[in-house]
Amino acid sequence: MAPRKLKIACAGLGRMGKRHALHFLNRTPRAELVAASTPDDTEIQWAKQHLEPYGVRIYKDYDEMLKQEGLEAVVIASVTTVHAEQAIKAIEANLHVLCEKPLSTSVEISQSVVDAAKKKPSLKVMCGFSRRFDDSYRDAFHKMDTGLIGRPSIFRSQTCDMLDPSGFFVAYAEFSGGIFVDCSIHDIDLALWFFGQDSRVKSVVSSGITAVQPELRKHKDMDNAVGIVEFYGGQIAYLFCSRMMAAGQDDATEIIGTEGKLTVNAQPMSNLVSIYEPTGIRREIPPHYYGRFEQAFVTEANEFTAACLDDLKLPMKLTGAVQAVKIGCALQESLNSGKKIYFDEVGRRVEKAVL
Amino acid sequence: MAPRKLKIACAGLGRMGKRHALHFLNRTPRAELVAASTPDDTEIQWAKQHLEPYGVRIYKDYDEMLKQEGLEAVVIASVTTVHAEQAIKAIEANLHVLCEKPLSTSVEISQSVVDAAKKKPSLKVMCGFSRRFDDSYRDAFHKMDTGLIGRPSIFRSQTCDMLDPSGFFVAYAEFSGGIFVDCSIHDIDLALWFFGQDSRVKSVVSSGITAVQPELRKHKDMDNAVGIVEFYGGQIAYLFCSRMMAAGQDDATEIIGTEGKLTVNAQPMSNLVSIYEPTGIRREIPPHYYGRFEQAFVTEANEFTAACLDDLKLPMKLTGAVQAVKIGCALQESLNSGKKIYFDEVGRRVEKAVL
Amino acid sequence: MAPRKLKIACAGLGRMGKRHALHFLNRTPRAELVAASTPDDTEIQWAKQHLEPYGVRIYKDYDEMLKQEGLEAVVIASVTTVHAEQAIKAIEANLHVLCEKPLSTSVEISQSVVDAAKKKPSLKVMCGFSRRFDDSYRDAFHKMDTGLIGRPSIFRSQTCDMLDPSGFFVAYAEFSGGIFVDCSIHDIDLALWFFGQDSRVKSVVSSGITAVQPELRKHKDMDNAVGIVEFYGGQIAYLFCSRMMAAGQDDATEIIGTEGKLTVNAQPMSNLVSIYEPTGIRREIPPHYYGRFEQAFVTEANEFTAACLDDLKLPMKLTGAVQAVKIGCALQESLNSGKKIYFDEVGRRVEKAVL
Amino acid sequence: MAPRKLKIACAGLGRMGKRHALHFLNRTPRAELVAASTPDDTEIQWAKQHLEPYGVRIYKDYDEMLKQEGLEAVVIASVTTVHAEQAIKAIEANLHVLCEKPLSTSVEISQSVVDAAKKKPSLKVMCGFSRRFDDSYRDAFHKMDTGLIGRPSIFRSQTCDMLDPSGFFVAYAEFSGGIFVDCSIHDIDLALWFFGQDSRVKSVVSSGITAVQPELRKHKDMDNAVGIVEFYGGQIAYLFCSRMMAAGQDDATEIIGTEGKLTVNAQPMSNLVSIYEPTGIRREIPPHYYGRFEQAFVTEANEFTAACLDDLKLPMKLTGAVQAVKIGCALQESLNSGKKIYFDEVGRRVEKAVL
Repeated sequence: MAPRKLKIACAGLGRMGKRHALHFLNRTPRAELVAASTPDDTEIQWAKQHLEPYGVRIYKDYDEMLKQEGLEAVVIASVTTVHAEQAIKAIEANLHVLCEKPLSTSVEISQSVVDAAKKKPSLKVMCGFSRRFDDSYRDAFHKMDTGLIGRPSIFRSQTCDMLDPSGFFVAYAEFSGGIFVDCSIHDIDLALWFFGQDSRVKSVVSSGITAVQPELRKHKDMDNAVGIVEFYGGQIAYLFCSRMMAAGQDDATEIIGTEGKLTVNAQPMSNLVSIYEPTGIRREIPPHYYGRFEQAFVTEANEFTAACLDDLKLPMKLTGAVQAVKIGCALQESLNSGKKIYFDEVGRRVEKAVL
Repeated sequence: MAPRKLKIACAGLGRMGKRHALHFLNRTPRAELVAASTPDDTEIQWAKQHLEPYGVRIYKDYDEMLKQEGLEAVVIASVTTVHAEQAIKAIEANLHVLCEKPLSTSVEISQSVVDAAKKKPSLKVMCGFSRRFDDSYRDAFHKMDTGLIGRPSIFRSQTCDMLDPSGFFVAYAEFSGGIFVDCSIHDIDLALWFFGQDSRVKSVVSSGITAVQPELRKHKDMDNAVGIVEFYGGQIAYLFCSRMMAAGQDDATEIIGTEGKLTVNAQPMSNLVSIYEPTGIRREIPPHYYGRFEQAFVTEANEFTAACLDDLKLPMKLTGAVQAVKIGCALQESLNSGKKIYFDEVGRRVEKAVL
Repeated sequence: MAPRKLKIACAGLGRMGKRHALHFLNRTPRAELVAASTPDDTEIQWAKQHLEPYGVRIYKDYDEMLKQEGLEAVVIASVTTVHAEQAIKAIEANLHVLCEKPLSTSVEISQSVVDAAKKKPSLKVMCGFSRRFDDSYRDAFHKMDTGLIGRPSIFRSQTCDMLDPSGFFVAYAEFSGGIFVDCSIHDIDLALWFFGQDSRVKSVVSSGITAVQPELRKHKDMDNAVGIVEFYGGQIAYLFCSRMMAAGQDDATEIIGTEGKLTVNAQPMSNLVSIYEPTGIRREIPPHYYGRFEQAFVTEANEFTAACLDDLKLPMKLTGAVQAVKIGCALQESLNSGKKIYFDEVGRRVEKAVL
Repeated sequence: MAPRKLKIACAGLGRMGKRHALHFLNRTPRAELVAASTPDDTEIQWAKQHLEPYGVRIYKDYDEMLKQEGLEAVVIASVTTVHAEQAIKAIEANLHVLCEKPLSTSVEISQSVVDAAKKKPSLKVMCGFSRRFDDSYRDAFHKMDTGLIGRPSIFRSQTCDMLDPSGFFVAYAEFSGGIFVDCSIHDIDLALWFFGQDSRVKSVVSSGITAVQPELRKHKDMDNAVGIVEFYGGQIAYLFCSRMMAAGQDDATEIIGTEGKLTVNAQPMSNLVSIYEPTGIRREIPPHYYGRFEQAFVTEANEFTAACLDDLKLPMKLTGAVQAVKIGCALQESLNSGKKIYFDEVGRRVEKAVL
């Protein structure tokens, strides 16, 4: 008898939703995509063409989908504003949940998902920080973990998007939580991974500019920003996020230890081709985040599926997703106030540095 | 109704056979692996564990497998010596065929597959030159094809395996056809791709050494060799093949045109990690061919499947596989005779250069 | 008649002093090293052997040296604590001055050199920021200056020394002014160069750790630190400095503009050699600052000489050296206080951000 | 008393002659350029402006120059056709000689220089293979020499010039000896260095095309060529030379040993700058040979000077220069005849391979 497959549904069929749906449909052998939901008519049409023929039932209403007979898990790729609500509903319906990052742009709401998940310890509830599933990051983590660079001490990471001349990201900024919550959240999660999931933030401070889109300021956002995050225990993460890269997606990370350093993607490239031409030697880089991390998303789908089917431990704790949002929100606040923000050892805001 | 899938069987479950079987089972959504055959008991055991539970029927006898009801295609990954025979039998059974390279180490036997395929023009019969499906090679080809480097003129390519200290390749050399037929066949196929499928060879000459395994000479083989292939029309390919790389699989290609140059994998790497340590900055490279080309094999499986289902043109002609063997065998002959070998414009051996 | 040469003396014959003396003796065709001074007996011995035979007069006393007949210029490479005093004395003796960085670890004392220089407008007085003379930095500046990357907006730069296991830098920290004044001063100067010499600092904030040398704290210093410098006009520089690199000197800079990005030394290397070995592919990097910037120091000597002989404009203003110390000192202060420091538009310290 | 300097003259003030003259004038502290000669009036004018003011005496006649009182050495940078004659005259005048490569495009004439030098064993006579003085090549040689890559076995090297659209090199081909003697001579010399100065050639074979300048054929030359050189002892060098690079000077070398591989300049670059722009990431490469090897020429001048003054052993034997021309000429002959050329163990041409 063929081993059973995880029956999963996909909520949201926007850009990332379509990708998640197809990953579970075609590239996750142990999963069976059985349903998908979206309130958007255009997306419904897409689903009828690309999913329905393969036995995927299409819903306009998320709540209806949750009732589908035999459903075991949901991947949530809808707009950020409904992530938490949909995740909690799924948990309450006894479904495993893979939720796109962030759980919410609010720390409290993010925490509410953790609280819901705690009540159902048998469920797998994961916030999808895709880089955790990237081969290069995993290799770097493994090398660090085996002591290759001594004690990790300084962490530099950047998430830099190619400039979208349409300026779509200005409207998007109204709901994104800001550049630190939308982009740097990945780098913050990586810092928590490399420094240890239970690292406690001591302070954050940030600065930013609007070099190409001054209108971002009406949403209290910037198009380029840098930040410093201090942790209790003597580690520092420093971050850069940008919306104006010329060449493409430029995401790089360095982990500096007492005995060595690891870099991930310090020399971005689309593939292994170099072009020699009159202006020099050139290589291309991926235009978008998905171009860099496609395989990581597929691995994420497969590992989440295996964790649900085999009751395996997830690669990261859900509480980390709240911690990441907390740091991201504090960096975004500092960006606008111009002030450094301090936390005590149990995570409460305090007025000045704990020395 | 779900779109139908291609019912395919896998012949041979050695190292590459297992991979092909799993690619068609798990990573080729439009294919259904329905059967697999191997005369080897250990491989049968593996198949019972990894394939049978998913509905794959296991055969000890290839001929029996061909009779399976509904079978539409075969991927042949058995030992090279039976490639041609199995391919011809499958063609005669009206099955599409994806055959691992080379069709045979003999030009005549390779040609017999082409002849068999000609009689069944509706069948898709492809020799699996995996690099044709690699993203980087495709990108390079596309850039050349759109004129980025002018007229391609000089082609350099190498297939260099990591040294296997067990010396397995010495015994293997008895049947491999020699290093030019076993390794450089890929580079020769690439040359035919980049210079044009109908390029006609004018001369070949080669030299080699046994730097690490003198016993190879009993099989008329070497562990390192270089060769030059001249084509009518004024192009030259020069090749290097080796069995003694220290760092890992080191396969690189350059295409030099009148207005630019393209390189593929001139800087090999396993992933995007760099390691800074007291001895300098280091990156790792894939230990084996599959580490470099895994994704290309998966793409190959998917595109072959699509070609069969949708009656699409295959990306390369089967005759090219004969031409590649012909050039590989001539290089291997020159390696042993120390002489340059000449061909006239219709492909016949001649005694001296056609000027 | 042979064109005349600039008669120059070298003050200080420590590590950098020896190098400067030899550069002017052997690698600056238009200069003639005529004198050198040092209070240190070992250095005197070295000078008697390596300089005196070539007609260089050796002094134990700096003031005596200044009186040497015909002397036209002094390169000051003594300990930082006497830079300013020696520079002022030379200026008062009507000598051109090339002073190693920093002028002083104190803003006020640095300013006193500027004040002295102002009174002798015919003299060339330059603080030796060596990177301004490096081919790669100059190429990057030129490319930016011609508009290749649009408007420069974000600047990232790091000065990271190889770990000296002797811990010499702990004792050195007593007088160095701290890691931001000693190391990052170069990066700060670069930021002022790329953003414009008259850029006005708006705020600084920094954080640091003692990962390998906790004793540094007794000198109010750290072994790793990061900082953010905001400028009026909407530019940001962010910096990293470290004393614990494993692989060697790791100095890198990025200039991010609205239409592109330039990097300098993002992939450090000693030379053009790569080593393929069982652990992967490796390249070495320079162990020390001089290994990276030797040629820049030679160019500096030659251009300073030409400026003196031909009355050319120096490549940078002396006031920039004071501005660099001011920013470095503020970063060092923030490192210890944990507080962000604000400046108004005319450069005065203020209590909070000017919004 | 100041240590004495080597009094040297420069013969020829063309492109390379000017550079040699200036290197000895300004960048070779232990040498004193005292004379220069050229039959060309324009070059004489240049010399009067750039050399004469510094005490360099200018001659129209080489023989006259040799008589100058106190002259100790000559650097010969005149046209190749007079290299040997001028070198022999200088040797007979008891002068040390640094002669630009090649000694001659004829093996016999090259040998005549060696014969002349043998009669004056106290003189330093060197053929200027500049790459022997390049830091990267030296580092690679040193690493190989200490056993890092085991026994060197395969050597790949290329000398590839940027396309000169003026086609100057067509006229130049009449006297250059052809692309293998003009360009690959450097690679051949490197092969002799890395495989051992006394390596004996066993066979050569080559192929070429005229991709951009068909007129080269009237001088029996090509614009792109590849060659294979077998040595007794089981080593192989394979070479590529080209006149049509788009990006700039592209000279690269690989030394493949039984336990590792070294590459030199496999990733060419002008400096340490990378440019991120909408078409990707780009770096520039040197447009000309001198851009790549300037510092090597300066080191050559300094080491030749030291060898003369201190009676040190030169870094390579003069006989190697004859061996390099012999191999280069044989490759050039094979290029035109289309035939492989064989040598016996004592270096005589034979009709077929010695097996």
